[in-house]
Amino acid sequence: MSDKIKAFAATGKGGKLQPFEFDPGPLGDDQVEIKVSHCGVCHSDLSMIDNEWGLSAYPQVPGHEVVGTIGEVGAHVKHLKPGQRVGLGWFSASCMVCQQCMSGDHNLCRTAEQTIIHRHGGFADRVRCNAAWAVPLSDAIPAAKAGPLFCGGITVFNPMVQFGVKATDRVGVVGIGGLGHLALQFLNKWGCEVYAFSSTDSKDAEAKQMGAHQVIHSRQADQIKKIAGSLDYIIVTVAVPLEWSLYLKALKPKGRLHFVGAVASPLSVLPVELLGGQYTISGTPMGSPAVLSTMLDFCSRHNIAPVTEDFPMSRVNDGLDRLRSGKARYRVVLTNDLK
Amino acid sequence: MSDKIKAFAATGKGGKLQPFEFDPGPLGDDQVEIKVSHCGVCHSDLSMIDNEWGLSAYPQVPGHEVVGTIGEVGAHVKHLKPGQRVGLGWFSASCMVCQQCMSGDHNLCRTAEQTIIHRHGGFADRVRCNAAWAVPLSDAIPAAKAGPLFCGGITVFNPMVQFGVKATDRVGVVGIGGLGHLALQFLNKWGCEVYAFSSTDSKDAEAKQMGAHQVIHSRQADQIKKIAGSLDYIIVTVAVPLEWSLYLKALKPKGRLHFVGAVASPLSVLPVELLGGQYTISGTPMGSPAVLSTMLDFCSRHNIAPVTEDFPMSRVNDGLDRLRSGKARYRVVLTNDLK
Repeated sequence: MSDKIKAFAATGKGGKLQPFEFDPGPLGDDQVEIKVSHCGVCHSDLSMIDNEWGLSAYPQVPGHEVVGTIGEVGAHVKHLKPGQRVGLGWFSASCMVCQQCMSGDHNLCRTAEQTIIHRHGGFADRVRCNAAWAVPLSDAIPAAKAGPLFCGGITVFNPMVQFGVKATDRVGVVGIGGLGHLALQFLNKWGCEVYAFSSTDSKDAEAKQMGAHQVIHSRQADQIKKIAGSLDYIIVTVAVPLEWSLYLKALKPKGRLHFVGAVASPLSVLPVELLGGQYTISGTPMGSPAVLSTMLDFCSRHNIAPVTEDFPMSRVNDGLDRLRSGKARYRVVLTNDLK
Repeated sequence: MSDKIKAFAATGKGGKLQPFEFDPGPLGDDQVEIKVSHCGVCHSDLSMIDNEWGLSAYPQVPGHEVVGTIGEVGAHVKHLKPGQRVGLGWFSASCMVCQQCMSGDHNLCRTAEQTIIHRHGGFADRVRCNAAWAVPLSDAIPAAKAGPLFCGGITVFNPMVQFGVKATDRVGVVGIGGLGHLALQFLNKWGCEVYAFSSTDSKDAEAKQMGAHQVIHSRQADQIKKIAGSLDYIIVTVAVPLEWSLYLKALKPKGRLHFVGAVASPLSVLPVELLGGQYTISGTPMGSPAVLSTMLDFCSRHNIAPVTEDFPMSRVNDGLDRLRSGKARYRVVLTNDLK
C-alpha cells in the first residue's frame, strides 16, 4: 500500500467527483486507519459536494457511511486490532472529556469532528478517525449492508433510545427513503404500530414489506386528519417543509414530533398549539458510539438491513446521480474497487 | 342563601363588569358548590372578557383562581364535605373515563370543561365544579394567598413534574409576572440555579428576593448570548414573540424550551436548529388534580405564596384595570364582599 490515500473528490461546487490522491500525514496517537471495503452515499454527501451549508472546501472527499477493517493503529489505541471489522459514520472524533462526552453523549460534543467537514471521508481506499468512533462490527452484518446503518440508521434509531419509544406506541415515519426505510424496520421490530407517511404512492407495498402497518400520503391533509390524536411519536426524515400543525394534530396528548432531517424553513407551528396536548417538538443528530453498538446488536438480532443499490466506487458519479434522481431504493452503497 | 348566584359579568366585549345574578339550576350528582372567599385575576380572564379567543358568550362571569369552602354536595360525591376548604382552577370538570383521565392526566382530557368557557366562573359568591376538580386546601395556606396557585401556580409547577426538572439543573424563567414570580419561588426551592428573564429593569431586586440567582434582560441579545449553552430548562410565561433561536442557544445540549404562555405567533425556529444540541420545544396546560395537590404540599413545606394586590370583589373593575396596566405586583386577588 502506498502512503498516499486514493480517493474521489469534488473539486468544486456541484461538480463530478475526480480521482484524487493525498498524503494523510502521520497517524494520530488516538487514531486508527480503516481500510474501506464499502461506503454508503447519503444526502449529506450531496449537500457537501454542492456546498449547500457553506462548509465545503475543495478538493472534498465525501463518504461517511464507511465499513472496513482496521489497518494501522495509533500508539495509544489498545482496544482495536488490525484486521478487525468496524464502521464509521458522520462523526470521526470527539473531545472525550467534555460534559457531553463524559455523559456518553459523544454525538453532542461541541467540538466533535465530522467525517467530511474540513477533512476527507470514505470515498477512498482508506479513512482515518479517532478510535472511539470506529465502532466494531460483528460478522452477523454483511459489509455491503452495514454502511448505511452508520449514518442513516443511527439517525433514526438514536431518538428511539433517547426518548424511550415504547413497544406499545403508535408511531409515524415521515419520508420513506434512506432513513425512513430503516426507521420502519426498527420500529416494527421494536413492537410498535407503524404508520408510513410518503408522498410517493409507488412505495406503499414496499413500506408495508419493511414494517409499516399503514401507509398515509404525506401531503394529503384529509388522510392525516383521519388519524388525528392517534400517534405517540412521529419522526420526520425529510428535509422539506410540510404542514407541521397537521402532524401535531395527528399526535396523542403527550406526543412528540421529532426531526432528524435538516428542515431549514421556520416551523409554522404556534407555541400555543403545543399547550393543550402537551406536545413536544425535538431534534437529534446521529448517535453516540454506545448507541451505535446497541443498534448493531438490534440489527443482528432482527435481521434488519438497508435495501441497497450497489455501485463500484469507480462509478461513484453514477451512484451520486442515482441518489440525486430521488429514485434510489433505498440507499446507494459503493464497493471499493480502487487499485 | 338565595338560590340565585350573585356575580360580576362582562356583558359585551371588553366592557366593564356589571353585577349579575343567575339561577344555576339543580346541582349535578358529581358536582359540588363552592362558597367563594377569594378569587385571583388572571390574564385569561381579560382574554375572555375581550373575546380574544372567539370563545366568549355574554354575559360572562370570569374568575378561575377560586378559593372557598364546600357548600352543597352532589348526591354521588363522597370525598368532600360541606365546610371543607378547597380551590378551583382553569378546569372545572373532565370526563374521568378517557385514556388521559384514567392515566392521571385529567388536564389533557379532550372534553375537559373550562371554568370560564361556556359557563360562569368565580367572580361570584358561589361557583360549581365536578368534585374531582375541587382540590382540598390545607390550613397551612391562607385563603387570600391560595387562589393564584390554582392557575398561575400550577401552570408553571406542572411542567417541572412532567419533565423531571432536577435540583442540579440551571433553569430560566422568561417573564416575571403572575406566573413567573411563582416559577422563581418553585424552582429556587426545588434546588435549581435560577435565571430570571425580564424586560422590566425595576423587577431585578424583587426577582432576586423571589429566588432568582441571576437576572437577565429578556430583549437584550448580548446578555442572552453571554449565557449560551448554560441552561437545562427555560420556561416561557409570556404570550409575546421573542427571538426564540437566541433562547434555544442559551440551552445546554438536551435542553428544553417550554411554553406555558399562549404565544400565538409562529415559532421562528428552524427544525434544523434543534438537531445539533438535541433541543426540545414543548408546551403544557395547567395540571391535574393530583399534581395540584402535590404543588400545594410543596408550597406549604416551603412557604411559597404569590405576592398579591388585594381588592374587594365589589371593586372588581379596579382590579381588572390594575392587571391591564401591567403594573400589578404580581397577582390581583379579589376578596368576596358580595352581600
